[in-house]
Amino acid sequence: MGFALEEPGDNVIIRRVNGSGTVISKITGDDGRLPYDIFLNTASVPVLAMKKDFGIDIGLEIEIHKKMPFGSGLGSSAASSVAATYAFNELAGLSLSKKEMLGYALKGEMIASGTIHADNIAPCLYGGFTLIRGYNPIDVVDIDYPNELYCTIIHPDIEISTRMAREILPKEIQLSTAIKQWGNCSGLVAGLLKNDFELIGRSMEDFVAEPLRSKLIPHFDLIKRLALSNGAVGCSISGSGPSIFAITKGQTNAINIVQSIKESLSNKDLKFDYYISKINKKGPKVLYIK
Amino acid sequence: MGFALEEPGDNVIIRRVNGSGTVISKITGDDGRLPYDIFLNTASVPVLAMKKDFGIDIGLEIEIHKKMPFGSGLGSSAASSVAATYAFNELAGLSLSKKEMLGYALKGEMIASGTIHADNIAPCLYGGFTLIRGYNPIDVVDIDYPNELYCTIIHPDIEISTRMAREILPKEIQLSTAIKQWGNCSGLVAGLLKNDFELIGRSMEDFVAEPLRSKLIPHFDLIKRLALSNGAVGCSISGSGPSIFAITKGQTNAINIVQSIKESLSNKDLKFDYYISKINKKGPKVLYIK
Repeated sequence: MGFALEEPGDNVIIRRVNGSGTVISKITGDDGRLPYDIFLNTASVPVLAMKKDFGIDIGLEIEIHKKMPFGSGLGSSAASSVAATYAFNELAGLSLSKKEMLGYALKGEMIASGTIHADNIAPCLYGGFTLIRGYNPIDVVDIDYPNELYCTIIHPDIEISTRMAREILPKEIQLSTAIKQWGNCSGLVAGLLKNDFELIGRSMEDFVAEPLRSKLIPHFDLIKRLALSNGAVGCSISGSGPSIFAITKGQTNAINIVQSIKESLSNKDLKFDYYISKINKKGPKVLYIK
Repeated sequence: MGFALEEPGDNVIIRRVNGSGTVISKITGDDGRLPYDIFLNTASVPVLAMKKDFGIDIGLEIEIHKKMPFGSGLGSSAASSVAATYAFNELAGLSLSKKEMLGYALKGEMIASGTIHADNIAPCLYGGFTLIRGYNPIDVVDIDYPNELYCTIIHPDIEISTRMAREILPKEIQLSTAIKQWGNCSGLVAGLLKNDFELIGRSMEDFVAEPLRSKLIPHFDLIKRLALSNGAVGCSISGSGPSIFAITKGQTNAINIVQSIKESLSNKDLKFDYYISKINKKGPKVLYIK
């Protein structure tokens, strides 16, 4: 499962130019880390695939303006991939469904992460909470949620490689642990659909990834404790970390959480960014058309 | 998760008599298999606990009329335990909540199965679909479901011991398998709450227990194939088996399923009973008060 935030988010500009090639003309906010090679960049790869599949032989310039932090567990690469897919669908007048766009955006994510996983792509594209029920074929289920739901992101200023965060997970788990997690996955979906914040909170206990991955995040236990004692119904790691997310009913609790964490971390050696956001209901949007 | 059926179901009669003791005066439908010892019978154990906790010092006679088959995977012992708990709550005018009754009914199930598990007790007591999110403390979540949902039970005339059905399960499972099952648990809850029969069906694939336990059930693959090709959205094993349940939209599909299985098994060496039932919305009910 995943969900989309109103912010942060990447901006991608696709501009029609003469000729028939595709180039990445500008990348900002990436500290020089993203490739200009169109076969290696998560934004251009879906565009190339769409051009090919629909026989669209036009010249394109792509600009990528990164606003999402790298290696944060917030789905930075998915944001660029979805933005580019959505923008090109608009520019070329393809009128693809979200399900059709999903396949293209996944090709971009594949370039970045090396695996087909839709946990970031699907919520980013569809908006709201999405459950990836399965992959064979891919089955994205839209999960409604309480309107007053806010998310607070604490993004510690460290990077965790997705590879390391994956390798830390065991290949096998106890059946008894799996059963507890099945209960909580099911409870989370029920809590969202029933607008039951308490149930959402109780269901957010992660028995598998969090106990292991939290060790990679300095002061995780303190941050989680502060979130829960300042109004969060639940708090856990976003993706492979190091970002930590807390769910609250309403914005006031979210502000209190950030305030308490600011105070407690002020004398610690950990810098962090934070975001307070409602859930993004619609996925990507067109900022302007020229 | 579990759900309650309109039928089959056990009848329990509790009658006030002189004195202060509790006796089981009659058991029918059990082929002499159930104990008359009040400390060993799943119906009397919760009654004794309630009498003690509420200081009710009255004489009681308990009759148990079994309608549910033994060792069927349908939750036969839970049915008696819940019926007795509910009946005594009524007779003694305790006005307990379902949550309060749950604790007592679980004591009866504990006597029968040796473990605290609420998969049968909770749906039997609450009615409808219930998710047991967790046990520490016990957290029963009511899951709404489509009104046209019917369940067909095929109960092959063999017995599988719960112990053997448990022992066949592995202690550990692949994380990748657990993740697929998390997707389906979540999908099932979403499908029920969203009235999406197709999603319910897709989510009913069991990657853990069914592949192993189905080997204990003669002609399981044939029965499942017939159910799915005659209108079931999903089909799996009920509890530890050997009962097989199929979910359909409406009663006509359910009747077709039974008909097709009757025909196909007519020349096979497997006898079976069947039940077609709507979901029981309310749990136990008072049949009469004298």
